[in-house]
Amino acid sequence: MTQLLRLQNFTVSADGYGAGTGQSLERPFGHADPRELMAWALATASFPGPTGPGATRGLDDRLAGDFHHGIGAEIMGRHKFGPQRGPWADHDWQGWWGDEPPFRTPVFVLTHHPRPSFTLGATTFHFVGGDPPEVLAQARAAAGGLDVRLGGGAETVRAFLDADLVDTLHVVVSPVVLGAGSRLWESPDVLDDRFHHDVVPSPSGVVHHLLWRR
Amino acid sequence: MTQLLRLQNFTVSADGYGAGTGQSLERPFGHADPRELMAWALATASFPGPTGPGATRGLDDRLAGDFHHGIGAEIMGRHKFGPQRGPWADHDWQGWWGDEPPFRTPVFVLTHHPRPSFTLGATTFHFVGGDPPEVLAQARAAAGGLDVRLGGGAETVRAFLDADLVDTLHVVVSPVVLGAGSRLWESPDVLDDRFHHDVVPSPSGVVHHLLWRR
Repeated sequence: MTQLLRLQNFTVSADGYGAGTGQSLERPFGHADPRELMAWALATASFPGPTGPGATRGLDDRLAGDFHHGIGAEIMGRHKFGPQRGPWADHDWQGWWGDEPPFRTPVFVLTHHPRPSFTLGATTFHFVGGDPPEVLAQARAAAGGLDVRLGGGAETVRAFLDADLVDTLHVVVSPVVLGAGSRLWESPDVLDDRFHHDVVPSPSGVVHHLLWRR
Repeated sequence: MTQLLRLQNFTVSADGYGAGTGQSLERPFGHADPRELMAWALATASFPGPTGPGATRGLDDRLAGDFHHGIGAEIMGRHKFGPQRGPWADHDWQGWWGDEPPFRTPVFVLTHHPRPSFTLGATTFHFVGGDPPEVLAQARAAAGGLDVRLGGGAETVRAFLDADLVDTLHVVVSPVVLGAGSRLWESPDVLDDRFHHDVVPSPSGVVHHLLWRR
């Protein structure tokens, strides 16, 4: 069984930004409003969001539900864990994800600054340096034979795409326009030379892009 | 956690038939060609088909993969198990599904003719009479807290719809025309008074219909 590296539910604005500018402790998405950007997912019955499950069980829900299916580990960029830059000053602060983070697997946080691993609920955070192939090898070893989720943000996704390590992508384009921030792509077709690509408009107003290796 | 009753991957012709006429041991779908009707699913990486996994990982694959997600039992009509009518004449014949049926849960086969349960691979077949609410109660009790899949055929789906027991439906309309057989509906909009309904055309040429209770 191949262990895929999969991007799931990664949502970008109509102009391709996964988050805005000016990230801070209070604003993980910077000037972007995550409730607006992620509205499509928050409305679904299966999304592991901060406010509990929503109500819809249509297309958006089916795709959002794949977040957990067959996943044994996640790799995330440091800025998905917290807003800090440089050496870790405060080990008491344990990230944006609360006492029961929705990952429920080992999570590998990319950082060149060492920090001890810790466990919250069913999620264990590890802090790892190394280049994308090295980190992916660690995550695969921890995934119990299952796939590895590439968690974002946009810089992290691009680094793993540049290293040609990503097997499937689920990117959701929201009708929001951000103008600046952390950008995944200039256009959804930029990967078409390397990936098959299903473009699936949803009745909710977002467009799902499902890509898999050629 | 609610235990839903879910129809998954149920494929009908453009004119609404789930199977053709003239079912026999050699032709489970009667005059319909299942390789044609189910071509959309057989091409996907996750479909538990007789020829092993296909290759695509786009929209069709995401939806086909929900076949197993969160399912703890299946209910199927007798003619999905075999072509026999009346009392069981031959207990040695154990159904169309081979030594490793793809269900991998308890399966409740609807029949008024008693037959002992048996296990093949990870699947145990039970043969049950009773009306839809009684059968659903048995399947739920066997599902270990998970959802129950409604397996078809069309008559079985209609019986559970008539009893208002179905929570979600995933029906796939294939461009094939059959003209006669076992019919699910005259048109995909016949349930819109009772269900929300996402209509999702796939790049493969089929149309996915995702319905959930209002």
